[in-house]
Amino acid sequence: MREVAIVAAGMTRFGELWGASLRDLFVEAAQQTVESAGADRVDAIYVGNMSAGQFVGQEHLGPLMADHLGMAGVPCIRVESACASGGVALRTAFLEVASGASDLVLAAGVEKMTDGADVTEVLATASDQETEVYHGATFPALYAMIARAHMLSHGTTEEDLAWVSVKNHHHGALNERAQFRREVTTDQVLGSALVSEPLRLLHCSPVSDGAAAVLLCPLDQAAQYTKTPVAIRGAAMATAAMALADRRDISFLDAVALSGAKAYEMAGIGPEQLDLAEVHDCFSIAEICCIEALGLAPPGQGRHCARTGETGLGGRIPVNTSGGLKSKGHPVGATGVAQVVELFEQLTGAAGARQVPDAEFGLAQNMGGTGASSVVHILQAV
Amino acid sequence: MREVAIVAAGMTRFGELWGASLRDLFVEAAQQTVESAGADRVDAIYVGNMSAGQFVGQEHLGPLMADHLGMAGVPCIRVESACASGGVALRTAFLEVASGASDLVLAAGVEKMTDGADVTEVLATASDQETEVYHGATFPALYAMIARAHMLSHGTTEEDLAWVSVKNHHHGALNERAQFRREVTTDQVLGSALVSEPLRLLHCSPVSDGAAAVLLCPLDQAAQYTKTPVAIRGAAMATAAMALADRRDISFLDAVALSGAKAYEMAGIGPEQLDLAEVHDCFSIAEICCIEALGLAPPGQGRHCARTGETGLGGRIPVNTSGGLKSKGHPVGATGVAQVVELFEQLTGAAGARQVPDAEFGLAQNMGGTGASSVVHILQAV
Repeated sequence: MREVAIVAAGMTRFGELWGASLRDLFVEAAQQTVESAGADRVDAIYVGNMSAGQFVGQEHLGPLMADHLGMAGVPCIRVESACASGGVALRTAFLEVASGASDLVLAAGVEKMTDGADVTEVLATASDQETEVYHGATFPALYAMIARAHMLSHGTTEEDLAWVSVKNHHHGALNERAQFRREVTTDQVLGSALVSEPLRLLHCSPVSDGAAAVLLCPLDQAAQYTKTPVAIRGAAMATAAMALADRRDISFLDAVALSGAKAYEMAGIGPEQLDLAEVHDCFSIAEICCIEALGLAPPGQGRHCARTGETGLGGRIPVNTSGGLKSKGHPVGATGVAQVVELFEQLTGAAGARQVPDAEFGLAQNMGGTGASSVVHILQAV
Repeated sequence: MREVAIVAAGMTRFGELWGASLRDLFVEAAQQTVESAGADRVDAIYVGNMSAGQFVGQEHLGPLMADHLGMAGVPCIRVESACASGGVALRTAFLEVASGASDLVLAAGVEKMTDGADVTEVLATASDQETEVYHGATFPALYAMIARAHMLSHGTTEEDLAWVSVKNHHHGALNERAQFRREVTTDQVLGSALVSEPLRLLHCSPVSDGAAAVLLCPLDQAAQYTKTPVAIRGAAMATAAMALADRRDISFLDAVALSGAKAYEMAGIGPEQLDLAEVHDCFSIAEICCIEALGLAPPGQGRHCARTGETGLGGRIPVNTSGGLKSKGHPVGATGVAQVVELFEQLTGAAGARQVPDAEFGLAQNMGGTGASSVVHILQAV
């Protein structure tokens, strides 16, 4: 396989973007990315999107997006893995470049969630329709069960969960593209409305519109596009049982652990060599489960990391410096690519007030549903 | 890139399969395929599916399908390009093997269309939501405009269109997995109900349930799985303007021509070397447009081929020996893979009453919407 680099990145602001349609969002992020590399055409495009069919009545995003980007003709394919759609778009684009089939490939993600569909109902179609949705389960309810299981197994408290939100809002306040640019306190989190016990409003990522994109090429061609390429050293995807009822331990995310292990092996590094990570904090409990499954915290000990500052800016391993899904926002198909936009900026020293000093290795972990699918990328500044 | 072979193929019967759910259909086709190669696990799976979210309330097919196949853990990703979803699933699987990332990869397609959703409305989301769907256009209406344009430009008649259906029903009558195993006459086609003038019921492919799968590995490992591998010599995808209103000539399918040209170049052959082809006859006019765009008939002359027998079994270049979408059925996400199942059987001499003698090269062309996306694969018996 050829070595692959990311040479440009771009994204829209995340939020309730009433003035922009699905195609507008994609074009803004894609154009920003392609132009910043000085390119005017690409060889192929992958678009991560969970559910434009249900959200805005539009499937077949491939040709629509290529066309509106002014690149009708170019191969453009939508890939979907629920909230991990952005991550799988990047992995597929990586394979297209690594294989030698194409040289310059755009990986993008987009979601338009605020146009009127019942968002909770649409998102629920990422869980098992027959054994979960049919019985009324929604994602807050499913993650609440995961949180409760983690509390029972590891002594995790509601305050531990709150600290994850406090940390990620602190980071997001420094990110001008974040949906919520404000700090929150543990008292505010613990006093916010109950959504699904023990999860409260400020434990949940929001409903968002947005798009993100990165541009890939062979590492040995990267100098044509940028002075600061970032190499993709690991790219792995894994699945697990879809329904919570079919898992051996719902407080441990097998697919996250498996995709992480494969990505570490491919990159030839371990978690201790990472300088920062973006992980999938759709709910505060998810960040705790993910950092444990990725070896960023010992098993059962992830609950302490936000409170002690270990996963905050300036800590041992900063997690979600972008603000994470919680504060930056979570347009589901865009999230996996937006995580990599943050890593690209961090690894090229362009993260401003959020900069992790001398960052060399970064990891992005993006998952679908309650972690039934997970994608991990490991990037290195070169 | 490594050379890639198909070593096994399988599919369900196509039709109104009330007794089988989305996951049942996938598992039946996938299991048949994996078992016929004597394998018990694969390295990755791609699932082509247009719209399970809208049809049956289920997104996130990757982990669900891997899990139900008994392969939880294995990377499994859904790819979508409307009715070309099966074709893009195969192309993506091809890249995964060609890149060296994986050795044994399953490419599958599945759709469950008869479970209650408004099928015409769901399918319409593969056209441009803002400029077509919003104004009430449906696919029969859009293809009726293409047919009318072809009639005006090339003198195509309603009887020419009818002959495509007659030919494909003749082929489908020989295929035990076809939805409609019966012959039709031109009088029956021309006397069937008008759907969208000039297209009648018997010019339209049906609403279907079904799944299909093929198993890929590096050509130099194929002997482990079969004595009769089939090499993938060309694999190309292209897009075109999404909305008919944005095209220079709606009777010519640019994306089909472009994907065909790229696949021929990659395979190092021209249309005259093909022994058979499966093309995307969602409506009878579509087959005529596709064979012209692929160079199987001179521009504007595709209308004669079914009547003269050139594209029938025993003719110059048999097209849609499986019965095509018209007679075999069109579970949209499965179609692109089912076309390749037919080629695999033809190129391994296993097509029974439909066998094209000594077939060496076959082409499969699968498209989305009104041809805004198209995928072409060229296979060779080795």
